[in-house]
Amino acid sequence: MNNREYAEIVCKELQAALGAIDTEATEKFADLLLEADEIFCAGAGRSGFQIRGFAMRLMHMGRKSYMVGETCTPNITENGLLVVCSGSGTTKSLVNHAMKAKEVGAKVALITINPDSAIGKLADVVIQIPAVSPKSDVQGAVKSIQPMGSLFEQCEGIYLDIVIMILMKRLGLDSDTMFGRHANME
Amino acid sequence: MNNREYAEIVCKELQAALGAIDTEATEKFADLLLEADEIFCAGAGRSGFQIRGFAMRLMHMGRKSYMVGETCTPNITENGLLVVCSGSGTTKSLVNHAMKAKEVGAKVALITINPDSAIGKLADVVIQIPAVSPKSDVQGAVKSIQPMGSLFEQCEGIYLDIVIMILMKRLGLDSDTMFGRHANME
Amino acid sequence: MNNREYAEIVCKELQAALGAIDTEATEKFADLLLEADEIFCAGAGRSGFQIRGFAMRLMHMGRKSYMVGETCTPNITENGLLVVCSGSGTTKSLVNHAMKAKEVGAKVALITINPDSAIGKLADVVIQIPAVSPKSDVQGAVKSIQPMGSLFEQCEGIYLDIVIMILMKRLGLDSDTMFGRHANME
Amino acid sequence: MNNREYAEIVCKELQAALGAIDTEATEKFADLLLEADEIFCAGAGRSGFQIRGFAMRLMHMGRKSYMVGETCTPNITENGLLVVCSGSGTTKSLVNHAMKAKEVGAKVALITINPDSAIGKLADVVIQIPAVSPKSDVQGAVKSIQPMGSLFEQCEGIYLDIVIMILMKRLGLDSDTMFGRHANME
Repeated sequence: MNNREYAEIVCKELQAALGAIDTEATEKFADLLLEADEIFCAGAGRSGFQIRGFAMRLMHMGRKSYMVGETCTPNITENGLLVVCSGSGTTKSLVNHAMKAKEVGAKVALITINPDSAIGKLADVVIQIPAVSPKSDVQGAVKSIQPMGSLFEQCEGIYLDIVIMILMKRLGLDSDTMFGRHANME
Repeated sequence: MNNREYAEIVCKELQAALGAIDTEATEKFADLLLEADEIFCAGAGRSGFQIRGFAMRLMHMGRKSYMVGETCTPNITENGLLVVCSGSGTTKSLVNHAMKAKEVGAKVALITINPDSAIGKLADVVIQIPAVSPKSDVQGAVKSIQPMGSLFEQCEGIYLDIVIMILMKRLGLDSDTMFGRHANME
Repeated sequence: MNNREYAEIVCKELQAALGAIDTEATEKFADLLLEADEIFCAGAGRSGFQIRGFAMRLMHMGRKSYMVGETCTPNITENGLLVVCSGSGTTKSLVNHAMKAKEVGAKVALITINPDSAIGKLADVVIQIPAVSPKSDVQGAVKSIQPMGSLFEQCEGIYLDIVIMILMKRLGLDSDTMFGRHANME
Repeated sequence: MNNREYAEIVCKELQAALGAIDTEATEKFADLLLEADEIFCAGAGRSGFQIRGFAMRLMHMGRKSYMVGETCTPNITENGLLVVCSGSGTTKSLVNHAMKAKEVGAKVALITINPDSAIGKLADVVIQIPAVSPKSDVQGAVKSIQPMGSLFEQCEGIYLDIVIMILMKRLGLDSDTMFGRHANME
């Protein structure tokens, strides 16, 4: 099978999984993103790389955003929103972050395969992506030919980019405006 | 427009761009990945996040892989391969890395929109993804409703995941084998 | 007070704290570093920055070293050593890492102010640096004019550099040899 | 030689190098840090780890600070200050950053062994630390028994911590106030 043949299958998997994400939950997620004074993003491994792209786009839009664990990330307070990407919803360090966020009165949003997970139970909004991973066993999930959590991680990145477009529309921003704060030292 | 409507458009953009990537160049890229003793991955900004996912999967497969700029990344030598993700192909730090790699006799692979760029000209293999970005003006490119380089960056991540499946097939690996070296402290 | 006057006080604090570190514990720590097949380094915040420098020097020496949380860091196994820097010895994510390491049969070394902490209790060797931090209340500790954990963090970095010199002596390495694997893309 | 004996020698090296840093340059550096709207910190390798600690402390003090290359770091503008740590003063990526900063009208501060370097020549203030490294050959420098740039890197970290104390005094801050924004998710 060559790369074009793989691409066709993967794009169908993406369409199936992304097309099943709840629209109401997404609107609520967008509300929380616009209401928060500061947005903290967290994720481990490949989920962490996807949400980094989201944190960066939020900065491009002029929102105060941070990656948990980076150098200049301050404490989260009651006006903050913590966005967590976790397929299993049970990664220990992320559970701790979510508990801390709730403890100080901040909001929590979770992008996950498993809404019934530890983080899912305390989140203010849960975005379920029905993409099968080796760690989960969810009814009605999209089957993937891809290894490990690849389909979920791809969906995370694309979904979060879609959320950015929803925010841009609400805020009346376009691509040129956003380029304004694009890093000029890299 | 809600998230499902956006998803449908974005998946069509992805299919158009990913479906246009050269199959011969991909096979040559896979050859270089299997021939190299060590694989060094580099990218700035959101392209950098996508290639991090690739570097991690290579490690899962038991290949010696590194992200340029991380703590324990050593020098590249003549048996190394440098894989660069850069939409423009002109990011200064990445041009410097590519020049250094060629200087010591290492191979260079580039994932880009612009094959005629500084890095493209010295690369051993160039993977062109025809996804329009604000920095480029390429004939026959896939038009996107997405801001900045989002379509290109999504394609990078998915394409590199496809390359992983091609490598897995060549090496006879499956998802279970690969989980063997998945980080257990995160 | 100008920077030179501050420097004089700080250097006295450093001498007092570093001069009190146990020599036998240090020799045992060096043994563990040489016996391990792979060395995993972990720390949060400013302690994390100091131990990054150690992980890098280990790589310069030709040892297989990793920072926990970076892209290409694999799982720890029974032949691994986890080195943790934590003033309090109680940072949750680091406690989890140490528990995981012990679970798979790996060794754990701790650099800390508080040997009686959660990580201290399960570590194979504990290096106590008697430098006062706001989170601790240790008898006989060196008092500092510096804010927060600064004195401890400075001591961590310098102590770990001293351990590198002890390893170099044991291995017969000199500065020129070590430069061999210094990153050439940065 | 055991760790205490090494510590005694290293602390003397530190005292000699730190005690030779210019006090007027330091006061000017403090002025620039207080005048800037945003402070961007940059460094490669072990110098980069030391300046990360400085960027974090600036955040603790309530200053807007960023590490160049991290996820949410925006563009530098004319009201920004770029602080570079580079022993040689010639690391290519850092030279590019400094040139970009000057191009947009921002200020540049350099901590270095070599004031006559490419970055030194365009910096608004240069802090010279006379600590010998293998890459330099400076008259009157402090000789070190330590490998590579270790003495310089230790001095960077400690010097920058001293600058923090100078800023705290000017701003009337104490350690308790600063703890206010210490990350609570780590």
